[in-house]
Amino acid sequence: MDAPRTVDLGFARLDVDRAARTGTPEVVYAAGKTPDQTVACLAALLEADGGGFAWATRVDAPTAAAARARWPGAVVDEEARCVLVGTPPDPVGTVLVLTAGTSDGPVAAEVAATLAACGVGCRRVDDVGVAGVHRVLAVAPDLAAADAVVVVAGMDGALPSVVAGLTDRLVVAVPTSVGYGAAFDGLAALLTMLTACAPGVLVVNIDNGFGAGVAAARIVRSVQR
Amino acid sequence: MDAPRTVDLGFARLDVDRAARTGTPEVVYAAGKTPDQTVACLAALLEADGGGFAWATRVDAPTAAAARARWPGAVVDEEARCVLVGTPPDPVGTVLVLTAGTSDGPVAAEVAATLAACGVGCRRVDDVGVAGVHRVLAVAPDLAAADAVVVVAGMDGALPSVVAGLTDRLVVAVPTSVGYGAAFDGLAALLTMLTACAPGVLVVNIDNGFGAGVAAARIVRSVQR
Amino acid sequence: MDAPRTVDLGFARLDVDRAARTGTPEVVYAAGKTPDQTVACLAALLEADGGGFAWATRVDAPTAAAARARWPGAVVDEEARCVLVGTPPDPVGTVLVLTAGTSDGPVAAEVAATLAACGVGCRRVDDVGVAGVHRVLAVAPDLAAADAVVVVAGMDGALPSVVAGLTDRLVVAVPTSVGYGAAFDGLAALLTMLTACAPGVLVVNIDNGFGAGVAAARIVRSVQR
Amino acid sequence: MDAPRTVDLGFARLDVDRAARTGTPEVVYAAGKTPDQTVACLAALLEADGGGFAWATRVDAPTAAAARARWPGAVVDEEARCVLVGTPPDPVGTVLVLTAGTSDGPVAAEVAATLAACGVGCRRVDDVGVAGVHRVLAVAPDLAAADAVVVVAGMDGALPSVVAGLTDRLVVAVPTSVGYGAAFDGLAALLTMLTACAPGVLVVNIDNGFGAGVAAARIVRSVQR
Amino acid sequence: MDAPRTVDLGFARLDVDRAARTGTPEVVYAAGKTPDQTVACLAALLEADGGGFAWATRVDAPTAAAARARWPGAVVDEEARCVLVGTPPDPVGTVLVLTAGTSDGPVAAEVAATLAACGVGCRRVDDVGVAGVHRVLAVAPDLAAADAVVVVAGMDGALPSVVAGLTDRLVVAVPTSVGYGAAFDGLAALLTMLTACAPGVLVVNIDNGFGAGVAAARIVRSVQR
Amino acid sequence: MDAPRTVDLGFARLDVDRAARTGTPEVVYAAGKTPDQTVACLAALLEADGGGFAWATRVDAPTAAAARARWPGAVVDEEARCVLVGTPPDPVGTVLVLTAGTSDGPVAAEVAATLAACGVGCRRVDDVGVAGVHRVLAVAPDLAAADAVVVVAGMDGALPSVVAGLTDRLVVAVPTSVGYGAAFDGLAALLTMLTACAPGVLVVNIDNGFGAGVAAARIVRSVQR
Amino acid sequence: MDAPRTVDLGFARLDVDRAARTGTPEVVYAAGKTPDQTVACLAALLEADGGGFAWATRVDAPTAAAARARWPGAVVDEEARCVLVGTPPDPVGTVLVLTAGTSDGPVAAEVAATLAACGVGCRRVDDVGVAGVHRVLAVAPDLAAADAVVVVAGMDGALPSVVAGLTDRLVVAVPTSVGYGAAFDGLAALLTMLTACAPGVLVVNIDNGFGAGVAAARIVRSVQR
Amino acid sequence: MDAPRTVDLGFARLDVDRAARTGTPEVVYAAGKTPDQTVACLAALLEADGGGFAWATRVDAPTAAAARARWPGAVVDEEARCVLVGTPPDPVGTVLVLTAGTSDGPVAAEVAATLAACGVGCRRVDDVGVAGVHRVLAVAPDLAAADAVVVVAGMDGALPSVVAGLTDRLVVAVPTSVGYGAAFDGLAALLTMLTACAPGVLVVNIDNGFGAGVAAARIVRSVQR
Repeated sequence: MDAPRTVDLGFARLDVDRAARTGTPEVVYAAGKTPDQTVACLAALLEADGGGFAWATRVDAPTAAAARARWPGAVVDEEARCVLVGTPPDPVGTVLVLTAGTSDGPVAAEVAATLAACGVGCRRVDDVGVAGVHRVLAVAPDLAAADAVVVVAGMDGALPSVVAGLTDRLVVAVPTSVGYGAAFDGLAALLTMLTACAPGVLVVNIDNGFGAGVAAARIVRSVQR
Repeated sequence: MDAPRTVDLGFARLDVDRAARTGTPEVVYAAGKTPDQTVACLAALLEADGGGFAWATRVDAPTAAAARARWPGAVVDEEARCVLVGTPPDPVGTVLVLTAGTSDGPVAAEVAATLAACGVGCRRVDDVGVAGVHRVLAVAPDLAAADAVVVVAGMDGALPSVVAGLTDRLVVAVPTSVGYGAAFDGLAALLTMLTACAPGVLVVNIDNGFGAGVAAARIVRSVQR
Repeated sequence: MDAPRTVDLGFARLDVDRAARTGTPEVVYAAGKTPDQTVACLAALLEADGGGFAWATRVDAPTAAAARARWPGAVVDEEARCVLVGTPPDPVGTVLVLTAGTSDGPVAAEVAATLAACGVGCRRVDDVGVAGVHRVLAVAPDLAAADAVVVVAGMDGALPSVVAGLTDRLVVAVPTSVGYGAAFDGLAALLTMLTACAPGVLVVNIDNGFGAGVAAARIVRSVQR
Repeated sequence: MDAPRTVDLGFARLDVDRAARTGTPEVVYAAGKTPDQTVACLAALLEADGGGFAWATRVDAPTAAAARARWPGAVVDEEARCVLVGTPPDPVGTVLVLTAGTSDGPVAAEVAATLAACGVGCRRVDDVGVAGVHRVLAVAPDLAAADAVVVVAGMDGALPSVVAGLTDRLVVAVPTSVGYGAAFDGLAALLTMLTACAPGVLVVNIDNGFGAGVAAARIVRSVQR
Repeated sequence: MDAPRTVDLGFARLDVDRAARTGTPEVVYAAGKTPDQTVACLAALLEADGGGFAWATRVDAPTAAAARARWPGAVVDEEARCVLVGTPPDPVGTVLVLTAGTSDGPVAAEVAATLAACGVGCRRVDDVGVAGVHRVLAVAPDLAAADAVVVVAGMDGALPSVVAGLTDRLVVAVPTSVGYGAAFDGLAALLTMLTACAPGVLVVNIDNGFGAGVAAARIVRSVQR
Repeated sequence: MDAPRTVDLGFARLDVDRAARTGTPEVVYAAGKTPDQTVACLAALLEADGGGFAWATRVDAPTAAAARARWPGAVVDEEARCVLVGTPPDPVGTVLVLTAGTSDGPVAAEVAATLAACGVGCRRVDDVGVAGVHRVLAVAPDLAAADAVVVVAGMDGALPSVVAGLTDRLVVAVPTSVGYGAAFDGLAALLTMLTACAPGVLVVNIDNGFGAGVAAARIVRSVQR
Repeated sequence: MDAPRTVDLGFARLDVDRAARTGTPEVVYAAGKTPDQTVACLAALLEADGGGFAWATRVDAPTAAAARARWPGAVVDEEARCVLVGTPPDPVGTVLVLTAGTSDGPVAAEVAATLAACGVGCRRVDDVGVAGVHRVLAVAPDLAAADAVVVVAGMDGALPSVVAGLTDRLVVAVPTSVGYGAAFDGLAALLTMLTACAPGVLVVNIDNGFGAGVAAARIVRSVQR
Repeated sequence: MDAPRTVDLGFARLDVDRAARTGTPEVVYAAGKTPDQTVACLAALLEADGGGFAWATRVDAPTAAAARARWPGAVVDEEARCVLVGTPPDPVGTVLVLTAGTSDGPVAAEVAATLAACGVGCRRVDDVGVAGVHRVLAVAPDLAAADAVVVVAGMDGALPSVVAGLTDRLVVAVPTSVGYGAAFDGLAALLTMLTACAPGVLVVNIDNGFGAGVAAARIVRSVQR
């Protein structure tokens, strides 16, 4: 394997051939970076992409402002805490994104933003928790129309177990830190999803909408290949 | 309050007025006791009850044999690991006992044995886990006919959340140690049940069929009062 | 089963037939929702209830203000962090709510507010922790007069074990996050209650006054049925 | 949705339409079942499948013997602890299964057996842990030829992070309980995989070769669709 | 400080002046030692004590047999798993040892054996758990007559909280591994005792009857000083 | 036992005979109480004590100010976060209070304030951690002069193990939340102290200077009795 | 051993001979100390060192300002949160410091500051995480030129496993609290490093750049000896 | 970097150039391997080393017997559970290996066997726990004579903190699973060592004598370089 290209910014070493290698362009994870560092990374990725597109996750308000100052056309998705600079690829396929409750919304928004950045279509249906299981049954047509499913749930995290029993699509489960007490900041939902009694459930880190989005995008791209 | 009567066996101090005080007769928890100790406790409880009835939980084979040697008519429930000596009260009311999977059977059996010992009726439906949610929906008539519901589930422990959304009965949830890895010997199911997104779910200790049975019996007796 | 009605607000999918199905009307869990979202949910639930009653828990000050702006007659219970809009059902029965210490008060207040919202009567006795066990013994008459008991305790969480040994009522135990160090934000009390040496103790999530109130209300309604 | 068919064995309620609904036929999870129960489940699934194929996981020696007694042609995979009765579907596609070390073999064997049962092809390369990272780099051609990748690793669980950075295939990561001390029976590897610095890693339960196999099979079937 | 004497056995380095320095003679902790190693340690301690007395804890059957073979008069306490060689000091003072349940007996026996080895008197009252709180109140005269109290309890570990509210004696609390599920091998009782709502409770390790005995003996010796 | 007197403030139920019963006067734990509630409790305790003395722990600045407004002569110990109103008993005996590091100071201050409130003398030596073990050896004369020893340590919590090997006094060990990372807010020090290789170490909750002070005071009072 | 010198500041007991004894001069750990206490400690250490050099870690802004007020020439390293007063020893040898990501920078800065304070040279290469493993392979020449290696990584903590397989230098691994969810504030990375499949990895506490720096300096000094 | 040589045994992929690359020859970790697999690995490593030397750790009795059957001159170290085939390198330098207690012996034996396999000298001093701190002070001359120190300790794991304060050598700390209850199978000792108040302590996995030995050998070889 030829060594992939790296762009060295001193504080960061950008893996600019990642898209070619893994199908997913490198993203800037802004948590723990200063606004200047994030903007510099975005600029370098944008340049490496020939000016096309670059984006960042876990962006706080000062960083979003810094990005907008540099690229006035940048799209800031406040719910998802993402910034997108330039034009993402046209969307192909469809991923169904379900949430168990309204409070899971920001994580689902990160999934949706990630799908957009990866050029994959998204349909989102919120608040279909299992306490009213008829709401889950009602999404059957959406399941049949999707290439993959992402289920976002906090508290008991029970939704993926029910959904995976209703569909032959792969279910990517995202536990969220929604809840209190024995929810232990998402640990309860994480364990529930890892031990789901229905097979076909795959799990990402707590609140990791980005990871779920990338994975779902890879599934769609496999289908389209 | 007058001090309740106590029977002192040296190694044990039996609270023989417990039934009068709490509605639940004292039971012998046989784990950690020798067969001789368990038999001595049963004998003392039987005597305090005027020869009517006494019972023990968490009974292993040698203890069951010792009890049968002393009381040939004793009933040994191997699945539930219980011994019942004498005649329990006639059953009143009905508790519906559901399991998520076949492997949860022994804990459900302890629930059933406890209900029998407390003089409460029981209907048991097994293997209705949420991976095939239609199996849960099919128990709706049983829910409507019950005075209370006990749900026994290991792995993801998701069943009580779904059941509690379908009924106005109180749902007593029993996590079991069924599962492996991130099930952590029942911890996953326990946390799921404590954070159930549907209200009306009350939780007992992992594998505690006895506690669930006693609680369900108290509910039935409240209704009958 | 006919599919229950759902009201779709986009960000939320309200299960407006829940009261008919489960005996407990849907409540708005305000944590993680914006004030506008909470008010919109309350309005939809109120409309579905024919203008009678709707309520929300885990309400912060801005949300309480928004509710008061919309419904000037709304009752804001600051200790319980609840908002009640309209007229709850007339209370029936009695639930005894005990706290181990003064610091457990806000959780007990949420229990009481939930009982009020469910149309169930409540008697509250505070600060009867087991370090002065005579204070527990003194509530014996209250226990005898109650349909069910809720025990709220942080730190060692030992109160339910003692209470359950004194009564034939069901004891709903609520661990609280009161305490420090090895209290681990309520984990110590939670484990204590799950392993209570007296049967008849059922446990809800840490600080979950709402869940305890709903469960106790179901018990009272069973008795009244 | 019409209610799917269920076969009621008393102790089990088989979801025989699962294959039609989810693309994955129901499997018998033999842990916690008696040999007789497992054989009865296999027989019922076989009958529901028109005599074609049925299988079970987590099979111990007595259960394997009971299955062989009933169906002499049954295939017992001792490393994978699986029994296959009848003829599985012809394999399509290819899943690459990597292990970090020799001790991860039995879990990889369960992945392979599951793929076989699901009618999906498998290529397995063992012992390519990151301590000799050139061994990982050497599998690049295998990565390019696969439809999906399953990575099985205990101890530090670092292999999926490296693999996911080398490929655009979805990486299903299986933590194993291999290791001692701070490996905490697979917890270390599980956390590593959940926090993998490379996106595109999806995680299943510790030692859950079955779940990984089902998920990989769904990916392959999506590609073939 | 002059360096205390040490006896070097190669595999062990006995601190034979410990009694002079700390008031507690060195004991042989037999877990993890071979029978020969334990006997050699006992012999060396006995010699250092002028032939008077030596003892060992956590002794299994082969080690007990080896000790009896070497010293036919050695006392083997099977419940406490201790061996005492020679004549311990005459007992002074009184420590009250309470257990919550019969299953806590072996740990209480280790407390009693340790007190005997340290030359301190012991009164033991078993099975006074808080589920029948009148049993606790009944020990008030014993509390008044004791120099210190040791409370041994598993499961919810609630007994020390109640006892410490009834006495001005120091309460040494010993959590035991009795219980199952959320008892987590004594963790629940340990946390309960550390967060006891009554002050004056001091805690030792789970099942550490030896440590509790040594501490109680030091209290008695302080009183007698 | 006659029922002890209780003063009912509505939100609190003061156990005013606790001193007579347990030798330790009731204290006001101010955490989770409003300034008004704390002041009201102090006033009630002061009245029950005939105007002599009352005190509170875990006092924040507003509560301290409220107490000073009510009782201008109240002593506010800012390091210990305690308020003392009136005149505590004259001190008897001596407790040696050691800290491992300067950062453990506030907890040691709470020990000292508690001893003062209980009428027991205190000598404090700070910053004698085991990384410079000669500093520990240098306190030998202080150990010999003390009636009991309290050792306060965070991080590795190793100091009590060393001290207990140097003295025949009882060692009360207080883990503190000093440290970061794997100190886990005091858990590391707590576990170290519970597993101390030297007997005679008794442990209280993390940061519980109050509990250690009460226990040490009971030891001194036992000696003086 | 002669007792080493100690400087007693009342609140602190400085171990001023530590450099002579351990090769590492005592440092002031400023967390939990007031600015005045930190400055007083620095002054005492400086005096004990004959005015040459003293330093402090975990310094916040007020403390840094207080140090600069006292010693205008003091060097404040904001990224590393260290203050250095006076002239550290001339650097010898070389330690290679690698980070997995940009967010690990502050911990690497503490490593570098510690090396400077100990008189050891440092080369730092950032952002070489295993998701782009060619970046790791590219540091091979730096590995060959170093006397020891420090690897700083959060999230999955996988980098040390790969590095240790490429070099015969000792690898000191520093887990960081970078990450979210199942990273559990550095626990995931800590467990990964402790279970690294490559030998030669030694681990320090989460975020403990100081400890890693001291250890690496000792290695270099061993080599130079 | 040229790709290192790999020997492919099917079930294992031996990294036979590891010694050249890392200074530590590959070892066979026998846990989870069959006796035949271990022997085959040893044979392949022996062949790759030109017949000189190969070895295995975590060897059980059947595997040791199989190795002896193949190579009658193989050395089986039962305490260390290692097998050494052929002639290890002549020892250079000296590592001091200390244990806190006799029960830590098997882990120290694994350290010693590893040092022998790596060609490094070893001096072992057992049972110098901090409960008798004079035993630690007595090893000062051994510390001065060593190139590096390995400290093996279970229970409270306090020994490395004390040792690191006495020497300028690097201290490699090995927590062991010796102890019970709150020792949590070595977790207590692990956390203690990670939070050691003395710098210069580096930690390996619980019971990982092999890892400590390899690390200490690398230090010695650095010194000798």
